[in-house]
Amino acid sequence: MIRHLSGLRGLGCARRTSARQTVHFRPFPRAPCTTKLMSTESESAAHEAASPAADPPAWLQRIKSNYCRVCGSPLKLLRPDGEREWRHVCGSCGYVDYHNPKLVVGCIVEHEGKILLCRRAIEPCRGLWTLPAGFMELNESTAAGAARETWEEANAAVKVLAPYAHWDIPVIGQAYILFRAALAPPYTFSAGPESLEVALFSPESIPFDQLAFSSVSITLRLYLEDLRTGTFRAHHGVIDKRPGSQPNDPGAFALRDHMALELGGASATAAGPGVQQ
Amino acid sequence: MIRHLSGLRGLGCARRTSARQTVHFRPFPRAPCTTKLMSTESESAAHEAASPAADPPAWLQRIKSNYCRVCGSPLKLLRPDGEREWRHVCGSCGYVDYHNPKLVVGCIVEHEGKILLCRRAIEPCRGLWTLPAGFMELNESTAAGAARETWEEANAAVKVLAPYAHWDIPVIGQAYILFRAALAPPYTFSAGPESLEVALFSPESIPFDQLAFSSVSITLRLYLEDLRTGTFRAHHGVIDKRPGSQPNDPGAFALRDHMALELGGASATAAGPGVQQ
Ligand SMILES: [Zn+2]
Ligand SMILES: [Zn+2]
Repeated sequence: MIRHLSGLRGLGCARRTSARQTVHFRPFPRAPCTTKLMSTESESAAHEAASPAADPPAWLQRIKSNYCRVCGSPLKLLRPDGEREWRHVCGSCGYVDYHNPKLVVGCIVEHEGKILLCRRAIEPCRGLWTLPAGFMELNESTAAGAARETWEEANAAVKVLAPYAHWDIPVIGQAYILFRAALAPPYTFSAGPESLEVALFSPESIPFDQLAFSSVSITLRLYLEDLRTGTFRAHHGVIDKRPGSQPNDPGAFALRDHMALELGGASATAAGPGVQQ
Repeated sequence: MIRHLSGLRGLGCARRTSARQTVHFRPFPRAPCTTKLMSTESESAAHEAASPAADPPAWLQRIKSNYCRVCGSPLKLLRPDGEREWRHVCGSCGYVDYHNPKLVVGCIVEHEGKILLCRRAIEPCRGLWTLPAGFMELNESTAAGAARETWEEANAAVKVLAPYAHWDIPVIGQAYILFRAALAPPYTFSAGPESLEVALFSPESIPFDQLAFSSVSITLRLYLEDLRTGTFRAHHGVIDKRPGSQPNDPGAFALRDHMALELGGASATAAGPGVQQ
């Protein structure tokens, strides 16, 4: 539905598909752990083409939605009147068990020119480095959730500065929302229960070959690029499984439909340019 | 967790809480329909203060999560080991029934200087005007979902231009993501099954006293302000129920923690300034 202008790939050199494309990726050295996918990229493409399917898609049939959460009766996959989509519907009370994308919220925490990363103590991707992030809870804001996750995973108090990136990852049913943040008093951090260690990395020392998720790799590459050019942008895009890639392909994920909002005014500093609050 | 810098209110004059606050609201003339709330604002504030509660919060107890969707056994509200939050957990198979915020995606469609609105044919807020928007589906991107909703509600093909606003509405467990969009060929529109009528409004003629939702009212006010100043910003914030407001209070909802990213470069046109694609 929106133009495919940046066909950035995880593996190999960046392709220039548009004269205005300004983001360049070096190869992903490694995509180190497997990800449980909701769908293949062909199913995803079929879905986005908005044609009603004759049968429930395979990924929907794989969701374990067997019983009604309200009354406990069995659910059936059917298309309610007037709906284009297949739904899990209760034959007894009529409850519809909708499945919606989940929000993952997190922070890119900067302190004295370095970036805070957490080494994961839990699967998936145990032992690899990530930005502090996790599922948003009901009854909190995205920014509050991002700060909470940073507190839980890194025992770090932060001041959220501005939204930095929104990544849709349809293949796992998630949307990532990441904020720029500054370490706040008392400027300390340590490993929370889900982390093995927490450390500050200078831009040159970020362990790109030991990052947990493609979303983290993509975010950090853009962040470093923005630091180099001296202006933070606000990024939006879709992270997809590349067609034909194998489950353990290091470049299996790629960014498409990348929109980078150029911010006006000042240079890239911790205080942040162009943010009216 | 983030600074409360813009204490914008739905009712009465805008308050200036910061010298850098640049957004002004006229009073909401009307907030015409009631909204099913997940929590009171005091529960919400308690939650954001990140203190573990001794009992499950009332809003969580009100969620009808009685039976395990996997095995059909009864669920219990408890705090799993190591978790700060109360969860609905299956006593039989261990499944945890998480409840997460839902994404609502939509478009601000501009055509020849006018903005497309839909008059709702369904509850809530039947008969009132809204931006085309709806729940994001699994297996699509936010931008694709926003275009799909516009197609379904207004039979309008659009070209998504750029992200415009992200609003968290914790009290109803939703996050709104709205894009700027341009009407695309064949430049036609008509009422879809959920709309009574669809129309283009000049900025001066937008029916602010007949809008369905506070999120729509807030978005359109900022959009008109950006049109006036000649530069689109990217907006992020939290829409909350004002403390002490009654359920049918026309100014019950207010924007807080408003962050407006000033975009660089060109003036506000349909093609959009400062967007790298
Ligand atoms: Zn039922
Ligand atoms: Zn169970």
